[in-house]
Amino acid sequence: MIIRLDHVAIAVPDLEASIRRFCADLGLELSGREDVVSALTSTAFLPVPGTRVELVHPLNGQGPIQRFLEKKPQGGLHHLCFATDDIDADVVRLRALGYAFTSDAPTPGAHGSRIIFLHPRGFDGVLIELAQYPEHP
Amino acid sequence: MIIRLDHVAIAVPDLEASIRRFCADLGLELSGREDVVSALTSTAFLPVPGTRVELVHPLNGQGPIQRFLEKKPQGGLHHLCFATDDIDADVVRLRALGYAFTSDAPTPGAHGSRIIFLHPRGFDGVLIELAQYPEHP
Repeated sequence: MIIRLDHVAIAVPDLEASIRRFCADLGLELSGREDVVSALTSTAFLPVPGTRVELVHPLNGQGPIQRFLEKKPQGGLHHLCFATDDIDADVVRLRALGYAFTSDAPTPGAHGSRIIFLHPRGFDGVLIELAQYPEHP
Repeated sequence: MIIRLDHVAIAVPDLEASIRRFCADLGLELSGREDVVSALTSTAFLPVPGTRVELVHPLNGQGPIQRFLEKKPQGGLHHLCFATDDIDADVVRLRALGYAFTSDAPTPGAHGSRIIFLHPRGFDGVLIELAQYPEHP
């Protein structure tokens, strides 16, 4: 079951510049930064009540954010992540309904989570990540 | 000052089908629907803790969502809206920093709000709406 919007991910070509724009200029807060090796991103976390914005930059010029930026060099909205309390049940249910995922099964994500991506063609062109965190084992 | 992520807007080519996908299938909740004449959208509201997803469809085949769908017929992530407690101060501050808006001044939005859009070129290709609601006059 979906329990919250975990984050909104924005692909950015220059992480330092984007942190300045979204935090110092727009007024969001920076709670931390992390190189997420599993996702091949260098990520800045900008919490807002109930959810967070993530600025995601390619780690070492590799991965899906790199490919996104090759098509959209200025950056852009990349995906929405919803937290669920039962990712395996969601995968079974959504697959039975005909939705496609970009991998066969959930894989390890940041902070002990398990994650999987729904193919954007099923949801109006929106790339949707599902994530289950250890507090909902 | 930014006080929350007010909503994430997804442009959708078929509102009924999208409501089924995001609610019945994915598991979000539908709290209501509204034709927002000021924005030329027919909108479905899907609340999640702290914020909401909005599915936005062109009203009578007109407006910015119509133009977005002409370029991306399958739909896609359209904009982020942040609620502020002082939209006029934010406009003055952001303009002084060199950011461009798509209108000269805030205009009336849904639910008694005043809204304005920042040009996406200032924020990594992301269209950002600022909204001030009557509870923060």
